[in-house]
Amino acid sequence: VVAKTLAAAPSVDQVTVVDIDDSKLTQLKDIPRIATFKMDVGDGGRLSKAMRGFDLVSGALPSSLGFRSLSAAIKAGVSIVDMSFMPENPLVLHKSAEAANVMVVPDCGVAPGLSNILVGRALAQLDKVEEIHIAVGGLPQSPQPPLGYAVTWSVRDLIEEYIRPARIVRNGKQTTVDALSGLRSVDIPGLGRLESFYTDGLRTLLDTVTGVKEMDEQTLRYPGHVEKVKVLRDCGFFSDEPVVANGCSVSPRDFSTEVLSRCLFQKDVRDVTVLHVEVVGQKRDGRTTILWQLFDYYDEAKGVSSMARTTAYTNVAACNLLLQGSLKERGVVPPEKLGMNDEHFLAVMSELEERGVKVEEHKSRN
Amino acid sequence: VVAKTLAAAPSVDQVTVVDIDDSKLTQLKDIPRIATFKMDVGDGGRLSKAMRGFDLVSGALPSSLGFRSLSAAIKAGVSIVDMSFMPENPLVLHKSAEAANVMVVPDCGVAPGLSNILVGRALAQLDKVEEIHIAVGGLPQSPQPPLGYAVTWSVRDLIEEYIRPARIVRNGKQTTVDALSGLRSVDIPGLGRLESFYTDGLRTLLDTVTGVKEMDEQTLRYPGHVEKVKVLRDCGFFSDEPVVANGCSVSPRDFSTEVLSRCLFQKDVRDVTVLHVEVVGQKRDGRTTILWQLFDYYDEAKGVSSMARTTAYTNVAACNLLLQGSLKERGVVPPEKLGMNDEHFLAVMSELEERGVKVEEHKSRN
Repeated sequence: VVAKTLAAAPSVDQVTVVDIDDSKLTQLKDIPRIATFKMDVGDGGRLSKAMRGFDLVSGALPSSLGFRSLSAAIKAGVSIVDMSFMPENPLVLHKSAEAANVMVVPDCGVAPGLSNILVGRALAQLDKVEEIHIAVGGLPQSPQPPLGYAVTWSVRDLIEEYIRPARIVRNGKQTTVDALSGLRSVDIPGLGRLESFYTDGLRTLLDTVTGVKEMDEQTLRYPGHVEKVKVLRDCGFFSDEPVVANGCSVSPRDFSTEVLSRCLFQKDVRDVTVLHVEVVGQKRDGRTTILWQLFDYYDEAKGVSSMARTTAYTNVAACNLLLQGSLKERGVVPPEKLGMNDEHFLAVMSELEERGVKVEEHKSRN
Repeated sequence: VVAKTLAAAPSVDQVTVVDIDDSKLTQLKDIPRIATFKMDVGDGGRLSKAMRGFDLVSGALPSSLGFRSLSAAIKAGVSIVDMSFMPENPLVLHKSAEAANVMVVPDCGVAPGLSNILVGRALAQLDKVEEIHIAVGGLPQSPQPPLGYAVTWSVRDLIEEYIRPARIVRNGKQTTVDALSGLRSVDIPGLGRLESFYTDGLRTLLDTVTGVKEMDEQTLRYPGHVEKVKVLRDCGFFSDEPVVANGCSVSPRDFSTEVLSRCLFQKDVRDVTVLHVEVVGQKRDGRTTILWQLFDYYDEAKGVSSMARTTAYTNVAACNLLLQGSLKERGVVPPEKLGMNDEHFLAVMSELEERGVKVEEHKSRN
């Protein structure tokens, strides 16, 4: 979706899509101004060479490949807007990105991504920020068996999300909690009762937002999902300790990725994305709560999932800021920095709205 | 336990134990009158040759190897008392066993096994049998995470039990229901509330018991177990359709056997076995219900699991009937036939009681 959207922009000459999987490239074959190139992007040296000469890179890789692709872009001297759920901290690349005279926007999807942009907006609008609560779910429009879920992204990174410890801020202190913990019940109009639990989605916000008392990200799922996923986790199906079966040594996590891919990729299942970003803080005129709500559906006309819409369009909006030359910073610039700038924030929001991704804002004084 | 118990009997000269796994044989190394022999018993021809010349074989193999070992014993001209949960119907071997002048006692563990013997006793005592309900559970003495269970036998055959459709009799007609279906709540004094569900444990009883209106076997587990196991099943972890991971093609079921073995074999967990056999029928003096109840604990003194006690001692009791020459039938003789004979039934029950496995009988007229 990133490639198609960028290729349709009048200011763009050509988009080249690189993938290891021929079948993915074939889907883009006959689209004007899209070229395709088969390559194993896990080879950082080759990837960096391939990036050279391009104006901009948009990264949409699994978490295990994300950090490497940022490094490759820096080495190639090309700016990158990325959306990988990499375990590494992208901010450590700040100095080398500055030295290479490039801009790296990490975590630029829906959440992390749009969520950071909205937090940035709050940081700019409030005098003091006390609490930040992010809740996000990419869900089928109704619960699908066997897990009440259907995947619209990467099963490997879904498992990663369910095992990576979540870093949150409690009572002003950063702390780490187990993934899938902190289970709560949440009522979402239009979807009914959902459950939410901690995931490690704050990421750069843990470094860029200071002085906050409470800060957390929770993921939304249909009720019962967490209990079922815990069965898989607790039985060892997400473990990395290899098991030998039929003479083959395989990591349970790799194996479960394949087994779950069969049941979680469900053709013809339409998705919905919910994002709530709530920021509580002080303004000269009193205690203020800002709540942003996104509720986005599968695009029937284009056959594009809501997950793709909300992540890709956010990524493209950031790409456009760079391509149009309005973003001139160098180094690693997390999306909350875009949100803190009036002009950039409004540009991103109006581009999202143009594509039908609407974010409602509610402000209240208390 | 079968080998040790037989080797300790004064009438037995020697027991030879055959296994593919050296570590299993090593455990028996220094026990008087036990010889060990490493062999792949999956090779039916070799197994049959190895059996020749012995007085009797006791079979304790996984379900996939059970039927082959019965055939091997018949070919070798040696009687066999077996306890494999084989998918095949052992009764089809009746004529060839008769022709070879041997006796084959299939399904001779606790349930199937002791359960069949008790049903046979009821068949002999009642004029007409109307209902047979068997409930059995081999459980840890308290629920163990992650599944509220700990395995004392074969994880491969545990999965088999959870996927093999269960044949039961309803309204006088044999019917097949899904494994794990028919969930009920049962109160077992000493263990509290358990759940029970259909498993395919009737087996030879479906052929040997006629004219019965209701007949079923249910397996007992701690509450919540079935729901968790269904998550694994519904996600495809028990499927036989190979998945490719790390370049290896492996059946999810084989793989899950290894993963679950890690979490279900729990050292230092003591087990308990519960068996209820309820038979309702007519006697000259009215409608009668006979209920047999077994409640057996881990043997702390000998370090022998209750699962081993109840299965092995039943098997050994049948072996002794053959070795002592009191069983002279030829062909396939399912354990319910032993139960129908007064002398054989009392011999089995007194041998079990000698070893501390007590079955209580409650008779009521209604």
